[in-house]
Amino acid sequence: MSETTETGQPKIREKGRLMSASEIERTLVRLAHEIVEKNDGGSNLGLVGIRRRGVPLAQRIGDLIAKIEKHPVDTGVLDISFYRDDLSTDGPRPKVTPGAIGFDVTGRDIILMDDVLYTGRTIRAALDALFDHGRPKSVQLLVLIDRGHRELPIEATFVGRSIPTSSREIIEVKLSEVDGQEQVLLVELVD
Amino acid sequence: MSETTETGQPKIREKGRLMSASEIERTLVRLAHEIVEKNDGGSNLGLVGIRRRGVPLAQRIGDLIAKIEKHPVDTGVLDISFYRDDLSTDGPRPKVTPGAIGFDVTGRDIILMDDVLYTGRTIRAALDALFDHGRPKSVQLLVLIDRGHRELPIEATFVGRSIPTSSREIIEVKLSEVDGQEQVLLVELVD
Repeated sequence: MSETTETGQPKIREKGRLMSASEIERTLVRLAHEIVEKNDGGSNLGLVGIRRRGVPLAQRIGDLIAKIEKHPVDTGVLDISFYRDDLSTDGPRPKVTPGAIGFDVTGRDIILMDDVLYTGRTIRAALDALFDHGRPKSVQLLVLIDRGHRELPIEATFVGRSIPTSSREIIEVKLSEVDGQEQVLLVELVD
Repeated sequence: MSETTETGQPKIREKGRLMSASEIERTLVRLAHEIVEKNDGGSNLGLVGIRRRGVPLAQRIGDLIAKIEKHPVDTGVLDISFYRDDLSTDGPRPKVTPGAIGFDVTGRDIILMDDVLYTGRTIRAALDALFDHGRPKSVQLLVLIDRGHRELPIEATFVGRSIPTSSREIIEVKLSEVDGQEQVLLVELVD
């Protein structure tokens, strides 16, 4: 994340499209069914999307589960921002922004959702934030893309697609609610 | 953990021996080789055992790696105690006891070690404690036994043996340094 042009944008080259809009849609439908199967219908479920792209994922999967199981599903939002401190030697650090999730997580089976799983540091920050809000019965993790390179012993329970990457490659998830387009791209930092 | 006799001891029945002393020894040798292979010789490694039975595991595996790679390996201790608060609905909660680990974890590839991985709550508490002590480059998790029933998205990088259990069953790891005997038992809570 240190390579930037004079305008402050990272210099990146698109290497290919990993998922189309219809592939994303099919994957989310499959994940919704997996969640329902593993959680016995899901009446105790609460979905929490990590801002930004975890939020539309949680909303869409919540809608899909509601359609499959004919009951509404609580859906909330967790705000995580990133900062680089003066001592940082390993990239930006995730930091939780205080704010309501939108429902009480205590006693609930929470599914935390994010677009990309990488080092695991964001998820650790999100777990801390969740437990600051209450005491969930359990927390499962859903990610659209697992790109590997874990630096903490965090693994997702539900994975859209596992895509091994080099550390110079970046996965860009584009969702219509956030980006006005719908696809997953593999891009590479260039010198 | 709520069934107790009048003397305060849980009523348990031994169901079988899962590992003998020699099986434990062979498994630790294999795990030491796995760690060295995955960590490129392991010169940046630091091993941290979770008290109580993670501590002899860290010491033994540290000795094995030192023998394989011909260099010493830093080995430290993390103290976690358990308490049941008045609001608890899901068993005792892990709590970190302040105290030195024994070496500086900052910038190091830490392998956190425990005897049994179950809900993942102890590991989450241990991660918090580790990061209170410094900023490791990465944290990998080693457990002798993974008994399933995860309640958090935590997974071990190195597993001695995966043993699916019912929630009434308990895995008892006995290590000579702590228990004066060496074996892994499957026991069951009885009414």
